[in-house]
Order: sequence, then C-alpha cells, then structure tokens
Amino acid sequence: MFKIALCQIKVEDDFEKNIDKAYKKINEASNKGAKIVALGEMFNCPYSGKYFSKYAEEENNSKTLDMLRNVSREKGIYIIGGSIPEKEEGSIYNTSYAINPDGEIIAKHRKIHLFDVDIENGIRFCESDYLTKGENITVFDTEHLRIGICICYDIRFPELIRKMTLMGAKLIFVPAAFNMTTGPAHWNILFRTRALDNQIYIAGISPARDYEGVYTAYGHSLVVNPWGEIIAQADEGETIIYADIDINYIEKIRKELPLLKHRRIEIY
Amino acid sequence: MFKIALCQIKVEDDFEKNIDKAYKKINEASNKGAKIVALGEMFNCPYSGKYFSKYAEEENNSKTLDMLRNVSREKGIYIIGGSIPEKEEGSIYNTSYAINPDGEIIAKHRKIHLFDVDIENGIRFCESDYLTKGENITVFDTEHLRIGICICYDIRFPELIRKMTLMGAKLIFVPAAFNMTTGPAHWNILFRTRALDNQIYIAGISPARDYEGVYTAYGHSLVVNPWGEIIAQADEGETIIYADIDINYIEKIRKELPLLKHRRIEIY
Repeated sequence: MFKIALCQIKVEDDFEKNIDKAYKKINEASNKGAKIVALGEMFNCPYSGKYFSKYAEEENNSKTLDMLRNVSREKGIYIIGGSIPEKEEGSIYNTSYAINPDGEIIAKHRKIHLFDVDIENGIRFCESDYLTKGENITVFDTEHLRIGICICYDIRFPELIRKMTLMGAKLIFVPAAFNMTTGPAHWNILFRTRALDNQIYIAGISPARDYEGVYTAYGHSLVVNPWGEIIAQADEGETIIYADIDINYIEKIRKELPLLKHRRIEIY
Repeated sequence: MFKIALCQIKVEDDFEKNIDKAYKKINEASNKGAKIVALGEMFNCPYSGKYFSKYAEEENNSKTLDMLRNVSREKGIYIIGGSIPEKEEGSIYNTSYAINPDGEIIAKHRKIHLFDVDIENGIRFCESDYLTKGENITVFDTEHLRIGICICYDIRFPELIRKMTLMGAKLIFVPAAFNMTTGPAHWNILFRTRALDNQIYIAGISPARDYEGVYTAYGHSLVVNPWGEIIAQADEGETIIYADIDINYIEKIRKELPLLKHRRIEIY
C-alpha cells in the first residue's frame, strides 16, 4: 500500500508561474506522504495551438524538466509530469515524462491519438494542426508496481488500455484536459470502465477549470480502483487529491472475477 | 427511425407460464409499435444449474421457438429471443435466437464467455459446471440496420463488442441477468461505455427482480445511444421499455467524434 497524489492546477499564460506553482504543489503532496505525484495535461502551458509552439521546450534544454528532476530528487519521490509541449526537430509533441526519486527520466509518453473533433453546439478542436503523434506505448517499472502513462484522448481507445494491461501495467496515469462537452458526458464512465475491464487502478489528472482561460477544462481529477469505484475525486477547482494504491486488492479482484483469464482471444 | 421494445419479465419455475407471459408481452410491445422486440436472458427458465438441464430444448423440437416464430409472423416483427437453454448432442448452451417477421430463425448466438466467479461476500456462480461455451460471434442484417447479439457476461469483454462493431453491427442486444453484486456496481457503466466507445446503440435486457426466486436479477433493462446516454431504463419490476433507434444519429456522432477512424491499430 502506498499513496499517490494528483495535483489539479489552474494553468495561466505565464510559464514561470506555472512551473513555480507545480513545484509548490508537488512539495505539498510529498509532505503529505505521496510516493508518486502526478500533474495534469499541459500543466505549464495554456491549452491552445498558438501557445504550444510558444511554450515548447527541447528535452535537453527544459526548465520544466529541470524543476521536475530537482523536486523528485529533493523529496525522493516519483513524478508523473503531466504533459508539456515538447519540441524536437521542428515537431511539437504532447509529452509526459516520468521521473524517478533520483531525478532521472525513466519514461516518456508522446500522446498517440490526437484530438481532432467537431461537435455540433460543443467543442471544436484540431490538435493535429499543431502537434505530431507519438508512436509508442509507455509502460515502466517502479519498486511499487508497473506503471503506464497515456494522455487524454488516448483513454478513448480500449485497445490501448488493454494492451498496457497485458504489458503488466497495474496503475495507469492519464493527464487529461477533457472539456465542458465531453467532461460531463464521458469523463467518469470512461475512467471507471477502463479500470473495471482491466482490473487496474487508473488516475485521471485534469487542469483546474478556468472560465477566463483559452480553454475550459472539466477538472474532476479522479482515481478509480480495479472494481470500477471512484476512490478519490476533485471538484473543478485547484486542489490536490490523494489515494492509497493496494496491489493486494488488484490480485483479489482478479481472483474473484477472472476477466483477463476468461478472454477468448481465439474468437476475436 | 424505428422503435424497439425490451420485455423485462419475472421468470418462474413453470415453463408453460414463462412461455405464455413472453407471448403476451411481445404482443403488447408490438401493438405499441415496436419493430424489434427483445426478451431477457433465460426468459423461460429459472437461472440455476439444475433448471438448465430440466428446461433445455432441442432447436428442432422447441415449444419456445414455436411460440417465438408464431408471434413474429403474426405481428410481422423481429424478435430477439432473449436466451434459453438449448440442448444439442448432450451439451447445453445458453442460446439467443433472432427471428425475422416471416417467423424464420435468422441468427443464433451461444454465450461465448461463461460466468465463473466467486466474489467475497457476493455472488458465487460457475456456469461452466452446466453449460458449454459458444464459439461464434453473432451479427446479422435486417432492413433496419445490422444487428449483433451477445449474452450477459459477454459484455464484459471490450474486444468482442469492438469486433462486432467492426463487423458492422450498429445495434447490439444483450440479454443479461446481472446479479445484486455486479448489477449496482457495473451494469450502467458497462453498457454506457461500450455504446460510447463503439458509437452504437446497445440494449441490455434483464429478467425482472425476484427476491423469492433461485436467482435475484438486477433488472434495470436499458437502451444506450452512441453518445453513451441512457435513453430508456426500467426499474427492477416487470415492465416493457421502448426506445427509438436513429441511424442518422449514429452517423452524426461518428462524424463529430471520429473514434473508429482515429484508432491506431498499427500500435496495439
């Protein structure tokens, strides 16, 4: 059993301020006993195409990564660094970095599925106008358990979460900025059913809602257990939520209701 | 746009009475304009191992199928015949028959995944002590749209519903007797997320709840639309619910949020 924390932060058009706030929230979460602290999607950058290029950093020249690596080392914790715009060779990616307690980057996930949608009387957004798709599934080991990362729209694809599960991930972090159309309609049931189907823990980390910002995130960051129950959930404002992760409970659920064993892959 | 009806019926240990009640409910639903009428899992047989063998019929010698074929022809409607215990060469299957308005069997689904679970302080059931697994996915055409059928525990497997969707099913019927452990915990979110992920209509048809029976079903039969919304839902008692199926709405949702197009099958 160990504690995780999700930091739901209001993002502003001020790079230094965003970094500084994330630093403080990570510190606070660590002081309250969290061994893994996660941030939201684009936690250092307003969620809009023109800001992605303005705020993007290269991996080897990133103040954001410097901050994450410093604080993880100072506090001796893992950090799931939400996501940030990452620049490489003229392309920009929506990238999440995982940092270990020694301040080392141990995994990175570039968002695989870009959010290109146009909903009547709702959200219109075309991420692929600004971003390049990732090509890899992201799963890595810690002394606690095997962890996976995917980003926002990636959660819409049950194939991906199943694959991460079959690769051994038992806790998946999903930095995600759902909006005011898809959030109320789909946020809870998507996270609950992915956790339930795969009998894993899933954490969704949203930015705080900001009606004045360029993009209004849904908030409601949450942690769901392998039975599909929400065991921690934020409202829409700036906050930190905590949950205990119990590996024995995963094993208990998988023994009682052996879904993964009952799959009939010869048929589908 | 056309109307479907789900008949949530209380099942008793009386074969003739179960058949007769189903006949009357199908008539009532048809009189109210339903073009497709669906029944629940094991609608002619109490849900318990010892009854499966007692009530099982062979396909070419089945009073249940005679009734379904007669009423479909009389009313000129499609029937999704819930499921019944079907006997063939010493094996018993949990089988759903689809009947067309000419009274012909046009599809049959034998439950692919058997419910073998043992939940602490909850349900214990081992279907494979009594039943044999089906081996095929069931999708068939009507003049309305392409339809799929699977049964109860089958809905737990996202691979199956995805496959049926890729085979063209746009409306899936799921006769299903969830219990008082898994029903409250999982019934709604499973159906909602399967419909949402695959952008199809899904109908779940339960027996009515019976606290005195050998098995207490959850009830709460429902129809979910491709946006993941419940558009019709029963409570736990004996009832018929109705919903309008709109093929244009499926196309609208798939255009606005092109999930099926955005899948990255080269990665997973």
